[in-house]
Amino acid sequence: MTFIDRLRKIQHSGNSLLCIGLDTDLKKIPQHLLKKKNPLVEFNRAVIETTRDLVCAYKLNLAFYEARGEHGWHALRETLALIPKFVITIGDAKRGDIGNSSERYAHSLLHDLKFDAVTVSPYMGKDSVAPFLESKAHGVFLLALTSNPGAKDFQYQKVGKKFLYEKVIETASRWSDGNIGFVVGATQAQQLRSVRKIVPHAPLLIPGIGAQGGNLEDVVRYGCDANGDLAVINASRSILYASNGKDFAGKAREEAMRLNDAINSFRMKFFQH
Amino acid sequence: MTFIDRLRKIQHSGNSLLCIGLDTDLKKIPQHLLKKKNPLVEFNRAVIETTRDLVCAYKLNLAFYEARGEHGWHALRETLALIPKFVITIGDAKRGDIGNSSERYAHSLLHDLKFDAVTVSPYMGKDSVAPFLESKAHGVFLLALTSNPGAKDFQYQKVGKKFLYEKVIETASRWSDGNIGFVVGATQAQQLRSVRKIVPHAPLLIPGIGAQGGNLEDVVRYGCDANGDLAVINASRSILYASNGKDFAGKAREEAMRLNDAINSFRMKFFQH
Repeated sequence: MTFIDRLRKIQHSGNSLLCIGLDTDLKKIPQHLLKKKNPLVEFNRAVIETTRDLVCAYKLNLAFYEARGEHGWHALRETLALIPKFVITIGDAKRGDIGNSSERYAHSLLHDLKFDAVTVSPYMGKDSVAPFLESKAHGVFLLALTSNPGAKDFQYQKVGKKFLYEKVIETASRWSDGNIGFVVGATQAQQLRSVRKIVPHAPLLIPGIGAQGGNLEDVVRYGCDANGDLAVINASRSILYASNGKDFAGKAREEAMRLNDAINSFRMKFFQH
Repeated sequence: MTFIDRLRKIQHSGNSLLCIGLDTDLKKIPQHLLKKKNPLVEFNRAVIETTRDLVCAYKLNLAFYEARGEHGWHALRETLALIPKFVITIGDAKRGDIGNSSERYAHSLLHDLKFDAVTVSPYMGKDSVAPFLESKAHGVFLLALTSNPGAKDFQYQKVGKKFLYEKVIETASRWSDGNIGFVVGATQAQQLRSVRKIVPHAPLLIPGIGAQGGNLEDVVRYGCDANGDLAVINASRSILYASNGKDFAGKAREEAMRLNDAINSFRMKFFQH
């Protein structure tokens, strides 16, 4: 099955556009877990077990795992093994290198670790992204408009009459038919509207709700395709650290459910689901 | 000592602008090494032992190590331990994420693995690069103009009257005084001239001589600062795979010496060293 069909399928069957970012930080997880042999994996296991029926995807930001070297890399692999096969996994790695090197990154992320999709940086152009797009079974979310302050430095620079991030989306959408999507931060909800006009059928990964404070109603309204699908709305800290006590997994579920219900109420409002 | 002082020091004491890219590929190394317990590290060890007096830096592209998972990550660490302290080590990782995540990448590369410098992607702007610039003991090479075909997709787009890569250099050179440098591919040797005008005192990492065929004379002439320093000229495959027989290390040394001599003859010609 193609990546985009899998994404649509789980967004329907699971009735969820929610993605949980497993940006797991040993400094923030409940203290009692630190006594366990592998606290990072134990934390992820509990969160996955209590939220797996509420999400369409889990996103793992590699920075949080690499920071722990070989052990972190192994924890990444162990965490991926805990995620049910029907849930999409996104390797948030933001790689991008000359073709020769990007091939290795694609091998590592899509074939060794077996992520279903990855985030990729657009700066080095087509041949740096192509190795990730080879199989339609895998998805790419190319960085377009990010949710951090630095987005203004280059992404909002004008290239002709367009912003650079629009130029990136227009250009890269021609690199593949079907498995290229884009990262558009929720803090830029108004911009989602113009992005959707450029790529009406592409998956959009939308980080920045919750801790970074994007407007959820606009995110759903403008981030979805015409059927109210293909927005992958990511929350990390607000769910993972909803409680730092022994009830963390239950509280994570409550917060995930609250968010998913809110998203679905806007989906009903704008798309008559 | 600051990164830039260390770089100048070894470029003078070692009389070398040459950087060897340890992009070690198990498919390309001599067959007899495959019988060893850790072929990748054994290959790197032999190359480092025979070239360490000829280089100012070694660059390790993380793609080649990550492709082997935890073992590759460990091989990266073992390789770094084999490099003499006076030689600069560059983690060619091309990372870049929101500040919160870039902090983890910076920790991993500069404090856990202990690279002296890293390559970083500019697309997400200042807060995505800042964590790598925190200590003047470490250097950053920000991607500006790369040596691959995809460079034309975005780097050569016009932002006002400038190319995007020039805008990146102008903007980012204000983010730090002293430890920010740029990646400028040798295939774009004519552009090095305009880059040097924008940043007369910044280190430039210049890949793409050898296998990618840049013009060495122009690279030295336009890539160096006014004293004939601060160009870090990288070659990988032409040195590593100079022979695929048992004489690979000796042949790597011969090729490194040939390149270094050629670089130094142009340094003499243009900078009266």
